[in-house]
Amino acid sequence: MSKGLPKRSEDYSLWYNELVKRADLAENSAVRGCMVIKPYGYSIWEKMQAELDRMFKETGHTNAYFPLFIPKSYLSKEASHVEGFAKECAVVTHYRLKNSEDGKGVVVDPDAKLEEELIVRPTSETVIWSTYKNWIQSYRDLPLLVNQWANVVRWEMRTRLFLRTTEFLWQEGHTAHASKEEAIAETVQMMNVYAQFAEEFMALPVVKGVKSENERFAGAEDTYCIEALMQDGKALQAGTSHFLGQNFAKAFDVKFATKEGGLDHVWGTSWGVSTRLMGALIMAHSDDNGLVLPPKLAPIQVVIVPIYKGEEELQKISEKAHDIMKQLRRVGITVKFDDRDTHKPGWKFAEYELKGVPLRIAMGPRDLENNTVELARRDTLTKSTLSLEGISITDYILDLLDEIQATIYSKALNFRTEMTSEANSWEEFQEILESKGGFIAAHWDGTTETEEKIKELTKATIRCIPIDAKEEEGACILTGKPSNKRVLFARAY
Amino acid sequence: MSKGLPKRSEDYSLWYNELVKRADLAENSAVRGCMVIKPYGYSIWEKMQAELDRMFKETGHTNAYFPLFIPKSYLSKEASHVEGFAKECAVVTHYRLKNSEDGKGVVVDPDAKLEEELIVRPTSETVIWSTYKNWIQSYRDLPLLVNQWANVVRWEMRTRLFLRTTEFLWQEGHTAHASKEEAIAETVQMMNVYAQFAEEFMALPVVKGVKSENERFAGAEDTYCIEALMQDGKALQAGTSHFLGQNFAKAFDVKFATKEGGLDHVWGTSWGVSTRLMGALIMAHSDDNGLVLPPKLAPIQVVIVPIYKGEEELQKISEKAHDIMKQLRRVGITVKFDDRDTHKPGWKFAEYELKGVPLRIAMGPRDLENNTVELARRDTLTKSTLSLEGISITDYILDLLDEIQATIYSKALNFRTEMTSEANSWEEFQEILESKGGFIAAHWDGTTETEEKIKELTKATIRCIPIDAKEEEGACILTGKPSNKRVLFARAY
Ligand SMILES: [Zn+2]
Ligand SMILES: [Zn+2]
Repeated sequence: MSKGLPKRSEDYSLWYNELVKRADLAENSAVRGCMVIKPYGYSIWEKMQAELDRMFKETGHTNAYFPLFIPKSYLSKEASHVEGFAKECAVVTHYRLKNSEDGKGVVVDPDAKLEEELIVRPTSETVIWSTYKNWIQSYRDLPLLVNQWANVVRWEMRTRLFLRTTEFLWQEGHTAHASKEEAIAETVQMMNVYAQFAEEFMALPVVKGVKSENERFAGAEDTYCIEALMQDGKALQAGTSHFLGQNFAKAFDVKFATKEGGLDHVWGTSWGVSTRLMGALIMAHSDDNGLVLPPKLAPIQVVIVPIYKGEEELQKISEKAHDIMKQLRRVGITVKFDDRDTHKPGWKFAEYELKGVPLRIAMGPRDLENNTVELARRDTLTKSTLSLEGISITDYILDLLDEIQATIYSKALNFRTEMTSEANSWEEFQEILESKGGFIAAHWDGTTETEEKIKELTKATIRCIPIDAKEEEGACILTGKPSNKRVLFARAY
Repeated sequence: MSKGLPKRSEDYSLWYNELVKRADLAENSAVRGCMVIKPYGYSIWEKMQAELDRMFKETGHTNAYFPLFIPKSYLSKEASHVEGFAKECAVVTHYRLKNSEDGKGVVVDPDAKLEEELIVRPTSETVIWSTYKNWIQSYRDLPLLVNQWANVVRWEMRTRLFLRTTEFLWQEGHTAHASKEEAIAETVQMMNVYAQFAEEFMALPVVKGVKSENERFAGAEDTYCIEALMQDGKALQAGTSHFLGQNFAKAFDVKFATKEGGLDHVWGTSWGVSTRLMGALIMAHSDDNGLVLPPKLAPIQVVIVPIYKGEEELQKISEKAHDIMKQLRRVGITVKFDDRDTHKPGWKFAEYELKGVPLRIAMGPRDLENNTVELARRDTLTKSTLSLEGISITDYILDLLDEIQATIYSKALNFRTEMTSEANSWEEFQEILESKGGFIAAHWDGTTETEEKIKELTKATIRCIPIDAKEEEGACILTGKPSNKRVLFARAY
């Protein structure tokens, strides 16, 4: 029930936390920073996985599985990689417990200390490239296009459900190529796949871009990303795709015989999205009544609620509802009939609003008489009466779900357009940040020093250098030094 | 290529290891006991997952996700559970690395020691029941029918690819019920789901039964299982389903308000199958030429190999092959056309035999002239010429794939029937074990002592007390004490 869900305008952060819990998406576990993804939340993640997995396979990738544990020495092989991950990793040091001497419970058995500690993977480049060394000998073995669905662990100090958790679920693609050009093309392709997924399925408009050096993945030569805007005006990085150059190939000595008879290091990419997308989905579209789910990712797309007095009315409504369900299911619509007698229709309405079901159909005795149903759209919260006379209900509902999907996207796109500003001076930049937030396109002198200074002063970071940024002469908002294109700043999750 | 694959009759164990590697199913990683599941192997596992997941959902279960880490104190809460798992678990003691003082690599940061150690889950009963405590208040919250797909870690001393690995992939169902009867019914149902999956999809006949007390899951009141027979006469436990009684509900204090107004502990079950099924699939059906895959789990069901001289011939064959592929794909058959010019047909034939592709279609110039194709079945290694004149090739191939599936199953069933013996004396028992192996149905006095003595003397264990075991008066093969039904012994993986 949505009773007491905090309002976004009053406390956006609390609204998010409460919504995640009350809509049965996830909750904190007994282990600090690790979440339990509840069945309803997980079923949304499964829908995301299914679409992404299909898109990966359509672009030639196959799935595989690599070990959870990484020997400590492996992590150290790529210098900037270990620098980036060493400070937040879970370390396995022992492989056995024993009964404690006081007989109360178990303790770590000091005799079962590992010779070399194992790191719970924060990401799998090192273990995968050490494997690729054996898989790749010649140009005939390339490209190697592999993805894995896995859990990873990064020891975060401040965690939030879905957005930043110690353990999270993700996919990580790891590809190997014979040329730099091909590897870069793969990196860009996967950024485009992520953007297409976000826009088409999550109804989430994203900016495609490249990260500044400072925000690059540890071990990459370039990080491409998609950036989305949340309703509180903060940005969220929704996916990244890294061009690794020959860094990991060199660290793990992965060479191949070229077509021309030479020997060269392989070029690599890696790319990933995670359960963080759940956070983006929730924060981008939901309202004070609860979740708003785009039909393409909704576990239940249509719910039918009967409004009745007595068994006889229910019986008649139920017959008609089952007929409608049968038709809708035949065209692939997920529909639920909630005829529980333990709850009133009003309670059910609030419940399905909280859960973000895109379309609600209510049917009462008068609807039976008139051959109508009442439709309620979750996205607009509008109701209408639909006459079933002479129409195809499947066509009508399919069209309506498409319209809901499109409307949710447009709303998010309009919001982002409204919330994207240009700033041409330091004063204007600060003013926009404080009054409005959102994306700010501004000139920057290209140095890490300036970027960090801006972050320190305003908490805003460079989200990306947009792919489609126009050439434009300008002056850095902080230093006044020359710049030839605008980059996108925002405060971010 | 199958060149040099060891023969089963000479060294079954080596044959298995080599087959797993050469067919690109899996390999050992740099981390002791952890495997890499390669793309081809993983695609078989994905097919298994898809079918099992569908079957779980059809029986009312939903997926969720619980944390990888379990606080040490949680593991200790159910006495026999910790006893069963404490000796083989990976323990996380620290959450950070730091640069070593000599500047060479990283070391565990002693300042980042966890207050309470975390166990990498060997199974998730404890973390899940600690969560269920908050999810269950009343009989209205029951039954709770949840599954998770996850990785687990058990520190095994002797490992073998798929069969016994330190990390493995599995699913674990965890359900909670209002009554003992309902929980037992769930336990039995899931054993039946596993049996149906094994027989229908893996083409693997299984014996359904109950484990002896000695072989029960740590924390269960009863363990149901399915047991299969491998080609070397050893048994393999392919899935288990546990009736947990109120053990975990009591350990984690999970109570519910009953319909009658009382308060009672909840009844539980858990059930799982793992990547071990991959080992069973490989060992049950494959031969000295390589893998034999049942069509329902084969990532490639049909491969078309062109036999040609020159571009022009290839062009014509290719046209026809694409026409056939289009037809086959339309009815859901997975088909690959291998027109690589880097390998000869003979090499490709051996390759697809090694990979277990159920049906191979070869097409040469004479086939074009005569409107025929050559079919080669992987299961029987027989070839035939098929005239396409006036037949529906899709119907023909669909039927043939069904026949292959059925033939693989019958062969395994015949083998098991042949390899199942009755022993009525200790001498006979030993003789059968040594000469023939397989399942031995024999009387047992029902004590753990006798069971352990038999294991010590012969390495044979009680695989199960079959569900359909007939009442039959008899005398224990070892002690001569009375027994009223036969149990199934075997040496096992
Ligand atoms: Zn090198
Ligand atoms: Zn209690």
